[in-house]
Amino acid sequence: MTDFRQQALDYHAFPKPGKISVEISKPAETAKDLALAYSPGVAEPVREIAADPENAYKYTAKGNLVAVISNGTAILGLGNLGPLASKPVMEGKALLFKRFANLDSIDIEVKHRTTEEFIQTVAAIADTFGGINLEDIKAPECFEIEKALIERCNVPVFHDDQHGTAIVTAAGMLNALEIQGKDIADSRIVCMGAGAAAVACMELLIKCGAQRENIYMLDRKGVIHTRRDDLNEYKELFANNTDKRTLEDVITDADVFVGVSGPDVLPAEAVAMMAENPVIFACSNPDPEIKPELAHSVRQDLVMGTGRSDYPNQVNNVLCFPFIFRGALDVRASRINDAMKVAAVEAIRSLAKEPVPQEVLVAAGVEALEFGKHYVIPKPMDPRLLPRVARAVAVAAVESGVAGIALPENYMLD
Amino acid sequence: MTDFRQQALDYHAFPKPGKISVEISKPAETAKDLALAYSPGVAEPVREIAADPENAYKYTAKGNLVAVISNGTAILGLGNLGPLASKPVMEGKALLFKRFANLDSIDIEVKHRTTEEFIQTVAAIADTFGGINLEDIKAPECFEIEKALIERCNVPVFHDDQHGTAIVTAAGMLNALEIQGKDIADSRIVCMGAGAAAVACMELLIKCGAQRENIYMLDRKGVIHTRRDDLNEYKELFANNTDKRTLEDVITDADVFVGVSGPDVLPAEAVAMMAENPVIFACSNPDPEIKPELAHSVRQDLVMGTGRSDYPNQVNNVLCFPFIFRGALDVRASRINDAMKVAAVEAIRSLAKEPVPQEVLVAAGVEALEFGKHYVIPKPMDPRLLPRVARAVAVAAVESGVAGIALPENYMLD
Repeated sequence: MTDFRQQALDYHAFPKPGKISVEISKPAETAKDLALAYSPGVAEPVREIAADPENAYKYTAKGNLVAVISNGTAILGLGNLGPLASKPVMEGKALLFKRFANLDSIDIEVKHRTTEEFIQTVAAIADTFGGINLEDIKAPECFEIEKALIERCNVPVFHDDQHGTAIVTAAGMLNALEIQGKDIADSRIVCMGAGAAAVACMELLIKCGAQRENIYMLDRKGVIHTRRDDLNEYKELFANNTDKRTLEDVITDADVFVGVSGPDVLPAEAVAMMAENPVIFACSNPDPEIKPELAHSVRQDLVMGTGRSDYPNQVNNVLCFPFIFRGALDVRASRINDAMKVAAVEAIRSLAKEPVPQEVLVAAGVEALEFGKHYVIPKPMDPRLLPRVARAVAVAAVESGVAGIALPENYMLD
Repeated sequence: MTDFRQQALDYHAFPKPGKISVEISKPAETAKDLALAYSPGVAEPVREIAADPENAYKYTAKGNLVAVISNGTAILGLGNLGPLASKPVMEGKALLFKRFANLDSIDIEVKHRTTEEFIQTVAAIADTFGGINLEDIKAPECFEIEKALIERCNVPVFHDDQHGTAIVTAAGMLNALEIQGKDIADSRIVCMGAGAAAVACMELLIKCGAQRENIYMLDRKGVIHTRRDDLNEYKELFANNTDKRTLEDVITDADVFVGVSGPDVLPAEAVAMMAENPVIFACSNPDPEIKPELAHSVRQDLVMGTGRSDYPNQVNNVLCFPFIFRGALDVRASRINDAMKVAAVEAIRSLAKEPVPQEVLVAAGVEALEFGKHYVIPKPMDPRLLPRVARAVAVAAVESGVAGIALPENYMLD
C-alpha cells in the first residue's frame, strides 16, 4: 500500500506536476500564423460571434470543452477538504473526458461562502464552456446547485456523482434483475445511503420501472419513513409509509440492495435474509458495504456488483459521463434530460449482452466475458461505449427536442 | 482584405473550431494508469494538498496554468461586445502564452451585472490557477477590478492591457529617448488617450524617471487639467495645473507623444510643432494616431513606434506578458509588483542593444537590425526574450520579497 501511495504521488509529480496541459491546436509558428490567431485576424470571429452567439461553436473551442467544477465539499470518500484539495480529482476527471471521449476538459475549483455564491460563480463563467460537469459537491446542497444552474445556464449541467452513478447503476441493475428473472416493478429495493448518489439512483430506477413504495432508503438514523421529522426535501421523497425501522426490518425478503454509503455496513446475516435470487450493488469505494467473498459465501444465488475494478460487475461512472457529454455536445443539447439518461442506461445495458471483442478481454485480463451473473455491466475499456452511448444520447436529445442542431449524418455509426 | 478576413475565419474554423485544446500529460492507457490518475490513486495527492496547500504546485497543473479572463467590455478596438464574443481573443492570448513561454493557459469569459460580481467570480475561481491575466476590460472599472483582485487572490493578477502595454512602451521609450539624446526626467510628454493603457503607461514612465508635471494627458474633451470637474480618480492623478487646453497647446515643444487613443488624431501640423528630436509612439491599432510615412515626411529627426508589425519599432505586448508570467510563476510570486515591471522594462530595453541573431532577422524579413532610430524595441520572434525577461522578473520578485520559493539554480541562464 505504501508502494502504491508513492507511485500515485510520483505519477502526479513527475516529470512535471499535474495530469493535463493546454496545447495549441492551430499553426502558430510564423508571424502570419499569429496575425490570423491574434491581432488583427481575431477581430473577424469576434465580429461573427457578436452578430450571432451560435458562431462561438464555429470559431472557438467552446463546443468541445467541458468544465469539471467542484467546491471540494465531498471529495471521493474523503469528505469536505476544500476546493484546492479537490484539484487532483478534477484534473483526473478532465483526463478521463479526454481519454474516453476526446473532449477537451478543464477543472475549475470554486471557493465560496454561500451556496448562492457558488451558483452565481458557475453561472457567470458557464458560457466559456460547451457543458458543465459538477463533481464532489455534498448533499443536499448539490441538488439545489444543480437545479439552479440548469435553469441559469445555456449549456448542459450534469452532476456526475448523482446521475452518472445512477445511470450505470440502473443499467447494471436492470441486467442483473433480468438474469435473476425478476421484474423491477415488483422488486423490493433497499438503498443504504441517502446522499446525492442514493437519491439519483433511486429516482432513475423509478423512471426505469421501480415502484416508489417498494423502495426503502436508509440514512444514518435508519429507515426513512413518513413519521420522521428530520428529513430534508430530497429524503422526504423517499419517506416510506412503513413500520419498518432498521436494516434488518427492510432487508428481509428484499430483492435488491444498493449500497452508496460506507464500508462493511451490510452484515452477512442480513444478506441471508434477502429474497431468492437477490441482487447486491455494494458501491462504497474502495471498501464495499459487504465484501463479495462474504456475500457469495452466504448466497450462491446472488448477483453482485461493486465499485471496484478487481471484482466482476464494476459500477464505474466512466461508463457514462464521457459519452453522455459527447452525445449532448455533438447535437448542442441545451440540457441533459431524463430521456437522454434513460437512453444511456439502455445503451450501456444492451452492450453487456453483445459478444466482447478480444481487446476488451485482454484489457480486463480475463479469458472470456459472457452476459450472466458475473458480467452484467460492460468494462470501462470497451471502445464500443463511445459510439453506442453517445449516439443513443444524441438521438434522445434530438427526439426529446433539446438538441440545438440535427443529428450529424451517420453519427457514431461504425 | 476580404481574403484576409476569410483566411482568419477559416483559420479559426478548420479543421476543428478554436485554437487550443486540453491534452493528457501523463500515461493514461492502461487500467493501472487510470488507477493512479483517478480512483483510488488520486486520493493521495488530495490528502497531501489538504495537509499543505503548497502541495498543489507539486501534484497539479496549477503552477504552470494561467487564466486569461475577460468580460468582453473592451475587446481590441471593437468595444463592448460582451463576454462570449471576446472568446477568440482570449483563446488567442492563451495560444500566445503557450507559444512564447510554454505556459498552459485557458480562457474564461465572465458574464456579470456589477463590477463586484465580476470581482467575486474571479476571486472564487482564482485558486485553480497559478496566475490570472485580465484582458479587454474597460476603464475605469478595470482599475478597481485589478486592485480588488490583487488584494483578494493568492496568485498574481495582471491586467495586460494596462501593464503589458506600459512595460513595452516604457522599454521602447527609454531607448528612443537615449537615441534622441534626451533625459526622460526633462522630457515633456503628451499622452493622447486616458484609458487603461494610457494611465498605466504614464504611471510606469514616472517610475522610470518621468516627472508627473511634465505629462499632459488628453481625453475626448482635451487636456486633463486641475480645473476640470469631470475626472474620475484615475484621470485626476494626471490633472495638470496648466492653462493649456488643446492638443496644439501641449504638443508645442513636446519631446514625446504617446498615442493610445484612435486613428489619425495627430495631424502633421502638430508633429511639426514638437521639440527637436521628438519621439512618437502611435499605438492605436491597426490604424495609428498618425501614419508613419506622414510623420516622417514632416520630421526627419523623429523616432517613431506603432502597434503594427509592418513598421519598425512595434510596441507589442507579446514582448512582455508571456515572460512576466513565466518569471512570476517560476518563483511563485504572490503578485507582480513595480520592481518586477521595471525589471521587465530593463530586460526588454537592453536586449534591443545586443546583436540580433540570424533567425530573428529571417523571421522579421529584414537584412539587418541595429540599435538605432528604427530598432529601439526587440522583435516578438526573438527567442532571447523568454530567458532574459523571465529571469529579470524572477530575480526582481525574489529581491523584492514577493517570491514564494528561491530562484531555481541557473534559472534561465543560457
